[in-house]
Amino acid sequence: MPQKILRFIPLSVALGSALLLSAPGLVSPAIANTDNAAESTKGPKVTSFTLDNGLQVVVIPDRRAPVVTHMIWYKVGSADEEPGKSGLAHYLEHLMFKGTKTVPGGVFSAKVAEIGGQENAFTSTDYTGYFQKVTPTALEEMMRLEADRMSNLVLTDETVLPERDVIQEERRSRTDNNPGSLLGEAVQAALFQNHRYGIPVIGWQHEVQQLTKDDAIAFYDKYYTPNNAVLVVAGDVTPELVRELAAKTYAKVKRRAEPGVRNRPREPEPKAARTVSLSDARVTSPSWQRTFLVPSYKTAEPGEAEAIDILGEILGGSSTSRIYKQLVIKSKLAASAGGYYQGSALDDTRFLLYATPRQGITLDQIEAEIDKVVLELLEKGVTEKEVARGINRQLKSVIFARDSQSTLARIYGASLAMGETLEDIEQWPDRISKVTAEDVNRVARKYLKKIRSVTGYLRPEKARS
Amino acid sequence: MPQKILRFIPLSVALGSALLLSAPGLVSPAIANTDNAAESTKGPKVTSFTLDNGLQVVVIPDRRAPVVTHMIWYKVGSADEEPGKSGLAHYLEHLMFKGTKTVPGGVFSAKVAEIGGQENAFTSTDYTGYFQKVTPTALEEMMRLEADRMSNLVLTDETVLPERDVIQEERRSRTDNNPGSLLGEAVQAALFQNHRYGIPVIGWQHEVQQLTKDDAIAFYDKYYTPNNAVLVVAGDVTPELVRELAAKTYAKVKRRAEPGVRNRPREPEPKAARTVSLSDARVTSPSWQRTFLVPSYKTAEPGEAEAIDILGEILGGSSTSRIYKQLVIKSKLAASAGGYYQGSALDDTRFLLYATPRQGITLDQIEAEIDKVVLELLEKGVTEKEVARGINRQLKSVIFARDSQSTLARIYGASLAMGETLEDIEQWPDRISKVTAEDVNRVARKYLKKIRSVTGYLRPEKARS
Repeated sequence: MPQKILRFIPLSVALGSALLLSAPGLVSPAIANTDNAAESTKGPKVTSFTLDNGLQVVVIPDRRAPVVTHMIWYKVGSADEEPGKSGLAHYLEHLMFKGTKTVPGGVFSAKVAEIGGQENAFTSTDYTGYFQKVTPTALEEMMRLEADRMSNLVLTDETVLPERDVIQEERRSRTDNNPGSLLGEAVQAALFQNHRYGIPVIGWQHEVQQLTKDDAIAFYDKYYTPNNAVLVVAGDVTPELVRELAAKTYAKVKRRAEPGVRNRPREPEPKAARTVSLSDARVTSPSWQRTFLVPSYKTAEPGEAEAIDILGEILGGSSTSRIYKQLVIKSKLAASAGGYYQGSALDDTRFLLYATPRQGITLDQIEAEIDKVVLELLEKGVTEKEVARGINRQLKSVIFARDSQSTLARIYGASLAMGETLEDIEQWPDRISKVTAEDVNRVARKYLKKIRSVTGYLRPEKARS
Repeated sequence: MPQKILRFIPLSVALGSALLLSAPGLVSPAIANTDNAAESTKGPKVTSFTLDNGLQVVVIPDRRAPVVTHMIWYKVGSADEEPGKSGLAHYLEHLMFKGTKTVPGGVFSAKVAEIGGQENAFTSTDYTGYFQKVTPTALEEMMRLEADRMSNLVLTDETVLPERDVIQEERRSRTDNNPGSLLGEAVQAALFQNHRYGIPVIGWQHEVQQLTKDDAIAFYDKYYTPNNAVLVVAGDVTPELVRELAAKTYAKVKRRAEPGVRNRPREPEPKAARTVSLSDARVTSPSWQRTFLVPSYKTAEPGEAEAIDILGEILGGSSTSRIYKQLVIKSKLAASAGGYYQGSALDDTRFLLYATPRQGITLDQIEAEIDKVVLELLEKGVTEKEVARGINRQLKSVIFARDSQSTLARIYGASLAMGETLEDIEQWPDRISKVTAEDVNRVARKYLKKIRSVTGYLRPEKARS
């Protein structure tokens, strides 16, 4: 797959995995890193236990290198914010580095750097995560520091207000100065009419501007409680050791709240096809996208999400996909083209098709050609051979994911943070293997309807009015 | 103006008034009725006082006939609902007729009917109102009954659940079976990406289905308190009498809550032009509309809203407007065409252009022609003569409104329920009179941009996919 395609694809898809590192609108990309060669095609023996305070602990053994990945996942994301408070989940993620009652701001990060470790944090619509990758000897200290900031965060106007400026600058540089991002926001807003997936994770600038220390503290007190979190430790450790270290660290954190069931507004059935057009002098190459509202792994009927994943493979998942072959190879209309299913989401989610035209080709030509490819698929259906190839690619992606300690930790963390079980994760390869051509045709005909879609046009011309 | 145009126009615009009987998405249209001839071109002497429990009382004398209009306005509408609870404000409006501790359900309405009165209720995005029009001798009883249901409403599953079915049926017949309404909903949802004006007053069917007695009671307890209401009494009464009757009725209602400032999420600056297309076999004639996000009387810079009102007059307010003349009279492309400004709203609102093509004319032709009219206005500006004519029409509409007791009561009630003052209402004719061509050109160039708009297409063909 040409590198160019990757720009459009979230990490989950770049990895070919349906188990979904990133939810729609993920702000901070994960640090990707490569470990040693694959251990086996069978997954590691993952264990899980729950502390008295409700914290779920998951241990993923990986003894290939003396390294450990320590991740804490909170079951809260931007789609849990209240109206008018967009950007708050992400803002709090930044503020979590500002220090606690006993550990001044910056000290945690400095410790990680000092021992040559890596750290990062990320906010999505559905979860927020923090991780460090360090030598096993440093694990206890990571657990102590992370547990400390789960309940002892100290925020003052002196630290909180400048960080808000940082975030506003982040929004300006990543979104407001990037017409492609602006179009993405507008498409997302048009697709989700009732659900907060329509609101950007980073927030609307005018609302971020109004966020206060009290907003952040209230959000922290409501959601950053051990019974609303999942701890994932992957690497050269035993469950026994993790249990012992957890007893000394996380077990001491008290429950502060009962966030309850994540029952968010559902989208109504879409009734009308929508388009969003953005023309901007800063656009260097035009692009086309169409996003369909589809169920996620959490909201789909049994088997549907797996079938949509295979549909994504067949339509746009690789250089052997129908869209790529027709648009890039045969007709040579597009420089890049493809599609994917963002199956990892708590609520109804999106299936996306996209293309970038070659020089001299219009977006109308691109759209007509993709319409043709989709129409043919809907009318004639997919072949068993295509389905088998799609399943194979998905299964390979699982093996590929298993090869990376932090990827695996992210898959488990994200899935559990969205309410899946270990069994859901482990049985996924079996479920995807059972998808049939009939399943794929059914979901294609059910969901690839224009009235379920928003088509986005990005053009380099200057807007006339 | 041909009758056909009125279909598209809220009552406020049908009356040519900017003082705004209906907010976006008003569910229950007001009962229009005609009184005797106009009293004078000067407004009546309106008085206002506030009871100890916070209820504002407004008295509008009108001695032309032995009739009185009694209206209670709550400062709450569908845009105050919580996410996932769409339709709740309107549902509660229905439930307000289900009886109280001492007055069984149906009795209030039966009394109004018995004395030959009229009654109605309505819910908008920004307010909810109840009114009766009766003989002055019945006023005290109306006040007693309305004050009673302000705090003594009794809801049981036996009354609440069947009413939910009624509302769902109302939604089916008015919206789901009406492609034009469905398109309107989809356009509204695409225009308002952050604000609940994007959510229909009647609610999404799947959310209405989930509303409970407890939801209704919580909403009632939070918002139906005297300090969140305005009482308007218009007709053959004196302020002294109303004060005396209020002391015996409304003054006995206790404050139950402090709803506080109505601070709702603001829209971000629009960045991309959007379209919404609905094709449905039930459509008998196609139609075209374009809605722009613009400030309301409450959110605009001083003078801007008045200028947008005049812009609405010039572009589409009558058969002498530019759009009507060009589309209907000159080019004969449209059977009807026009535009208006929905200035009455607590938050940013919409400016709408619309047209219905004649037989054999496409929506593309309509759009190109309206684009031309708008472009010419933006480039060459409006004339002083057009502005004077627009001002004149607006002022006439005020006189016309004064001629109807219930229209006047509605204007005062709606404006006060949205936080305006008596002075705002009374000084409006002066303010509108001061609008200049320069003011109109400035707001036209500032707001009539495609990136601020959603264009809606309603077509009779059957959807292909």
